[in-house]
Amino acid sequence: MKETMVIAKENIELKDPVLIEGLPGLGMVGKIVVEQLMKQMKAKKLADLYSPHFAYYVLVTDDGSIRLLRSEFHYWRNEDGGNDLIFLTGDSQAQTIEGQYEVANAILDFAEKQDVKRIITIGGYREEAKDEPQVFASATNEAMLKRALEAGAQNSPAGNPIVGTAGLLLGLAKLKDLDAVCFLVETLGYLPDPKAAKSILAVLMKMLGVKVDLKGLDKEIAKSEQIEEKIKVIEEQRRTSEKRRHKIEEEKTSYIS
Amino acid sequence: MKETMVIAKENIELKDPVLIEGLPGLGMVGKIVVEQLMKQMKAKKLADLYSPHFAYYVLVTDDGSIRLLRSEFHYWRNEDGGNDLIFLTGDSQAQTIEGQYEVANAILDFAEKQDVKRIITIGGYREEAKDEPQVFASATNEAMLKRALEAGAQNSPAGNPIVGTAGLLLGLAKLKDLDAVCFLVETLGYLPDPKAAKSILAVLMKMLGVKVDLKGLDKEIAKSEQIEEKIKVIEEQRRTSEKRRHKIEEEKTSYIS
Amino acid sequence: MKETMVIAKENIELKDPVLIEGLPGLGMVGKIVVEQLMKQMKAKKLADLYSPHFAYYVLVTDDGSIRLLRSEFHYWRNEDGGNDLIFLTGDSQAQTIEGQYEVANAILDFAEKQDVKRIITIGGYREEAKDEPQVFASATNEAMLKRALEAGAQNSPAGNPIVGTAGLLLGLAKLKDLDAVCFLVETLGYLPDPKAAKSILAVLMKMLGVKVDLKGLDKEIAKSEQIEEKIKVIEEQRRTSEKRRHKIEEEKTSYIS
Amino acid sequence: MKETMVIAKENIELKDPVLIEGLPGLGMVGKIVVEQLMKQMKAKKLADLYSPHFAYYVLVTDDGSIRLLRSEFHYWRNEDGGNDLIFLTGDSQAQTIEGQYEVANAILDFAEKQDVKRIITIGGYREEAKDEPQVFASATNEAMLKRALEAGAQNSPAGNPIVGTAGLLLGLAKLKDLDAVCFLVETLGYLPDPKAAKSILAVLMKMLGVKVDLKGLDKEIAKSEQIEEKIKVIEEQRRTSEKRRHKIEEEKTSYIS
Repeated sequence: MKETMVIAKENIELKDPVLIEGLPGLGMVGKIVVEQLMKQMKAKKLADLYSPHFAYYVLVTDDGSIRLLRSEFHYWRNEDGGNDLIFLTGDSQAQTIEGQYEVANAILDFAEKQDVKRIITIGGYREEAKDEPQVFASATNEAMLKRALEAGAQNSPAGNPIVGTAGLLLGLAKLKDLDAVCFLVETLGYLPDPKAAKSILAVLMKMLGVKVDLKGLDKEIAKSEQIEEKIKVIEEQRRTSEKRRHKIEEEKTSYIS
Repeated sequence: MKETMVIAKENIELKDPVLIEGLPGLGMVGKIVVEQLMKQMKAKKLADLYSPHFAYYVLVTDDGSIRLLRSEFHYWRNEDGGNDLIFLTGDSQAQTIEGQYEVANAILDFAEKQDVKRIITIGGYREEAKDEPQVFASATNEAMLKRALEAGAQNSPAGNPIVGTAGLLLGLAKLKDLDAVCFLVETLGYLPDPKAAKSILAVLMKMLGVKVDLKGLDKEIAKSEQIEEKIKVIEEQRRTSEKRRHKIEEEKTSYIS
Repeated sequence: MKETMVIAKENIELKDPVLIEGLPGLGMVGKIVVEQLMKQMKAKKLADLYSPHFAYYVLVTDDGSIRLLRSEFHYWRNEDGGNDLIFLTGDSQAQTIEGQYEVANAILDFAEKQDVKRIITIGGYREEAKDEPQVFASATNEAMLKRALEAGAQNSPAGNPIVGTAGLLLGLAKLKDLDAVCFLVETLGYLPDPKAAKSILAVLMKMLGVKVDLKGLDKEIAKSEQIEEKIKVIEEQRRTSEKRRHKIEEEKTSYIS
Repeated sequence: MKETMVIAKENIELKDPVLIEGLPGLGMVGKIVVEQLMKQMKAKKLADLYSPHFAYYVLVTDDGSIRLLRSEFHYWRNEDGGNDLIFLTGDSQAQTIEGQYEVANAILDFAEKQDVKRIITIGGYREEAKDEPQVFASATNEAMLKRALEAGAQNSPAGNPIVGTAGLLLGLAKLKDLDAVCFLVETLGYLPDPKAAKSILAVLMKMLGVKVDLKGLDKEIAKSEQIEEKIKVIEEQRRTSEKRRHKIEEEKTSYIS
């Protein structure tokens, strides 16, 4: 393997498929969204993507087997006459600049072979959400952007960089005159953020005209809120003890001088 | 996109064109100069340059659209019989050593296709300017250097490195027997430095026999001088408070020992 | 040399050979195991592997000669009718991500040319051993894993990454439908760990149906245990003196405030 | 320029030439030696080597011209019937691992075209010299090593790495069955070390049967010894003031606690 390569498991034909990409990144939002959709929609494996630009280790799987780091394509057939869907998620992003471009190219090449009509990429935007995490959209053309805003997204602030595969797929798609839109959601991004993922899913379901059960996600949100609460308490204690130390230092100084 | 590539928007013929390069660098001088010229001369888009050696993110534009990082070529037709001009500026420079060489090669290849006769590159030189920022010139041959000095530049100090695209374009041009000159201007380089850019523009206008309105630039200079003034005040306060702390430390020591 | 290359010293035919890889890594376990086997079994040189992805220096050898960093293949003919063996060890691993993939590919290509039937890779697993260092196995298929467990290895914990050549060989072998197994042994990994190597050798000998004399290794184990003992004493002293310093600091603080 | 390239200035035929390489490195020893030989022997320019793996800047030369970083080949015709000489020195070494291998390959390819019979590489060895800096030799074969030892060099300690071009040229030469020897000299290596260079020159002149005037070098040695003397004085002062500070700290502690 000298270059990124995609190995197709099945040779199938899909109806006007839409590619939805969500790789690990800020708050793991993209990965949570895509995995949630795949699980609820019972998506089937379509292909694997391997790259010499992924980190140089393999993972041990549950059954004592191993595998290279990879990204996976899954597909879902839309029985209601709408677009079929292709999902892309994986273990990691490429580790070097040139690798990032090569992997994004390989994804687009595969998408074009599958006759993909539209591309949706998903990521996080480092910003503390006030209440419900806001979803921001940017797109390769006006029509795509309009659809995204109608589905509940906000206009992405200008100048904002979209880093990694979620961004490069859009940029390279534009050069190829492919329709693509990116959804970024507010997240602190330090921990997996299922609440931010839920905001994206609301927009996505509306835009795609599909509906999936989010009860499983709600349980994860409850769990993650408990974890955040615990971390806040620990942080508070750390700050208090630090303030105390500072005070002692100041008293030392004023006593001596 | 596996290599740096230039996508031409228009297929036009230019008259003995001169290429003027100004990419982001010290004090953003090169970029300010080229953007000022492009704006005042109403230059038209000629081509875009994309590279897998640029950083791996895309930018969101004002209208919610996105684009890959790129460099842009614009052109201006000289109605007075002199040389036409090609401008090159962009978002960033290549991120790796090999990328720097590849991008500079791609620029030169495109310049040769446009039948470019001369290349001018622009950058900053880290040195506090006494009064008016001095402009230093170096060139691929004596005749070019003489013209630059006649236009008001100083001889560049020997041994001085010219880093990045501004330098590599000259070095590679020399191997191809192309005429090229580099102008570096004194700048502290931490902030965008429109005053340094103005010094370069004075030399450039004389050398090229063109004249552009610099009123807009003068406004930016006034603004940047206000910002510098504010930063100086903050710096002064920081230094005073640091001196005070040192004095306290010394008194502690002398008291105790 | 623009790419990794294997230079064969002898053009020989081997009987259903098994490739055993042990390169420098955690606790040098892989290298110790393979060198022990090679020495006891009087293996003969088969080929050298050189790579522009190894570090850019050469080593001076005992006779004042020099050599590039390399990996070496040796072979052993099994006179009892079982599989012949090919050993792979060397000076270092590749220094970059892409280099790691390229070198692993070159090893597999050479293995396929030698008609290798099975691949065994060896490494360390950062974990303090309770008593006897445990050996963990993972494999490209169930049959291989079963044989490894029967020979005394444990099931490798899921999610565990196998870093470097030991891991990539397995991952890439799986893509090529080659049988491969990886043995990782518990080791602190800071110092060469012959005791951990012995645990691996016990499993290996059982799995391969061969027997080698481990007296030399036992001597090294005794030596390394003495070194560890000394380091523990030094660590203990360091900790005691640090505690004393902390106590003085605390007393200062409580006196003053 | 996508790869390292050598541009020959003259197409000449040399008599059994010996290549002597000395690039910037520890104590600049190699560069000083080769430049001293070139100057005293009035060597003429043979070729330039450029590489996209050198740092991405150009240098301004004395006459306001510029040039890419490069290595230069010069030659000297031996009128006494002995070997002609080719000298290689330059601005810098390659900046990446793969670049180091590529540049060393390009040098060897050019050397083979010139029908080079022997290669001598020069560098520093980080060790404080007792009196006269010792010269250590290692070689690709026994005959070369013997000649080096007869010329006054010591056997290089085993296991010692030879880093960079001086090392890789030897390692790659060995793969091509070319004769090569490396001389490393003791040097602290922080400053240019003309005294260490003189030790190498003594060995080289004996081995090559040539003689050059070293008066110029003696002046540089005198100058560098004065600089070292000054640095020692400054170091001494720094250490004294540091001891004083430590003492004050200790007194504070004992006073307070």
